Amino acid sequence: MSRLTVPTAVRRFSDGRFVSRPDVVAGEEPLEIRVDGVSLTTTMRTPGADIDLVHGFLHAEGVITAAGDVREARYCDGVDADGRQTYNVLDVERARSAVPPTPIIARSFPTTSACGVCGSASIEALQRDLRHPLDDGIAVQPAVLQALPDRLRERQRTFQRTGGVHAAALVTSAGEITLVREDVGRHNAVDKVIGALLLQGRVPVRDAFLLTSSRASYELVQKAAMAGVGLLVAVSAPSSLAVDLARATGMTLVGFTSSRGFNVYCGPQRIVGA
Amino acid sequence: MSRLTVPTAVRRFSDGRFVSRPDVVAGEEPLEIRVDGVSLTTTMRTPGADIDLVHGFLHAEGVITAAGDVREARYCDGVDADGRQTYNVLDVERARSAVPPTPIIARSFPTTSACGVCGSASIEALQRDLRHPLDDGIAVQPAVLQALPDRLRERQRTFQRTGGVHAAALVTSAGEITLVREDVGRHNAVDKVIGALLLQGRVPVRDAFLLTSSRASYELVQKAAMAGVGLLVAVSAPSSLAVDLARATGMTLVGFTSSRGFNVYCGPQRIVGA
Repeated sequence: MSRLTVPTAVRRFSDGRFVSRPDVVAGEEPLEIRVDGVSLTTTMRTPGADIDLVHGFLHAEGVITAAGDVREARYCDGVDADGRQTYNVLDVERARSAVPPTPIIARSFPTTSACGVCGSASIEALQRDLRHPLDDGIAVQPAVLQALPDRLRERQRTFQRTGGVHAAALVTSAGEITLVREDVGRHNAVDKVIGALLLQGRVPVRDAFLLTSSRASYELVQKAAMAGVGLLVAVSAPSSLAVDLARATGMTLVGFTSSRGFNVYCGPQRIVGA
Repeated sequence: MSRLTVPTAVRRFSDGRFVSRPDVVAGEEPLEIRVDGVSLTTTMRTPGADIDLVHGFLHAEGVITAAGDVREARYCDGVDADGRQTYNVLDVERARSAVPPTPIIARSFPTTSACGVCGSASIEALQRDLRHPLDDGIAVQPAVLQALPDRLRERQRTFQRTGGVHAAALVTSAGEITLVREDVGRHNAVDKVIGALLLQGRVPVRDAFLLTSSRASYELVQKAAMAGVGLLVAVSAPSSLAVDLARATGMTLVGFTSSRGFNVYCGPQRIVGA
């Protein structure tokens, strides 16, 4: 089972003519996540590191708070029409099942008034849900940030082959990348990193920060905040709600990171000289 | 209410020093979609063209098949804690409500066996759901495709200001871009384009094709197929399931499109000379 990448054939047009050639695309398959027998959600993901993914996802959603909350996580035994195990359904059995799980319809957006969701209500709800203070023990030099996109690219093995996946990584304040996960979904890549850390007993995250090869959305800041991450560095742009949420939780948010420079949107105290 | 973009202040690091400067980020807010009083889903989107978005989303999900299926779509009247209308909840009342809507938990992935979802089951289910044959009346010259990324960029006004949104566009076989929508979510951008076409009575899509500034995922091919689109052109990489689904539905899928060339993954008959 190696579905990180899938071989395919293409007709490539360049220099004015078509040629047939073999190619490789990023694997994408649905993963259904079941908790205590209830189907919570189905996410499209790149197969691999599924156990990390499900731990990170459930942690971000507040369904579990530590690796010990999971008694067992295993693939469902069933097979597809061709008799093959699909590896696309993960059953999670919790150690303590006081609160029954509920299917995730509207993600974590509370409907606090007659007229439902708004950004500030989402932010207030998350602030209430945070279990860990964000990491305050980190101070990163500008040159460390500038070097990150190139360093990350060297470690993005699936991206190198397909050009079709995002990466998330854990980085020390000295700029050492200690953990990388790739996925067609940037949120899955972050779940895989945080899930791996959870399984290693390293949540809340301390003395390290999170790097994403993508843009920074509300969802990524939310996942980082739940894990106590103090600094989120994005290679590309942040959204308005990502900035608002980072500001509200006291997180440092950096975007448009390249060898030429970067933008600090909030929390400058974790960046030396900002 | 102009929340396409949101002003913010940043500390920019470049040329070895920090400077404070005003900046603009892409708007991101939750949108809750309710149908006949039932909350179906909440999506993070860039405000604007919400009516298009909801029509396109409900069409892709099979909840509506034509603009006439919607009796009324309007923002919920409620207000947030500061007394402002949030414009973040859209109530859709259907003209014929034979089948009650159900919350969208697991998107459109059927669990066809004891062990649930797999890519091929998803593809078979979509093939059954397709209402329109895909457009076969289109033949596009390679030079038209090569020119598209630059042409699209000229029309990506929110991207020009923020660097933080995707675009989807409708394009004629001669390469004229006739409709552009932008959003922090690439799937939302596609929903906005298809929803706008649905409201104009132009679904199934004929004599035109769909262009996305992003990668091509399963979800984008699915939305395009539901609208009868025969050709989907992506600026970046496709995923494995996107290629599988395009092949199964007879769609032409083009990726890695730039001024230097492009890849045809399947359906070469719609690309002249391929």
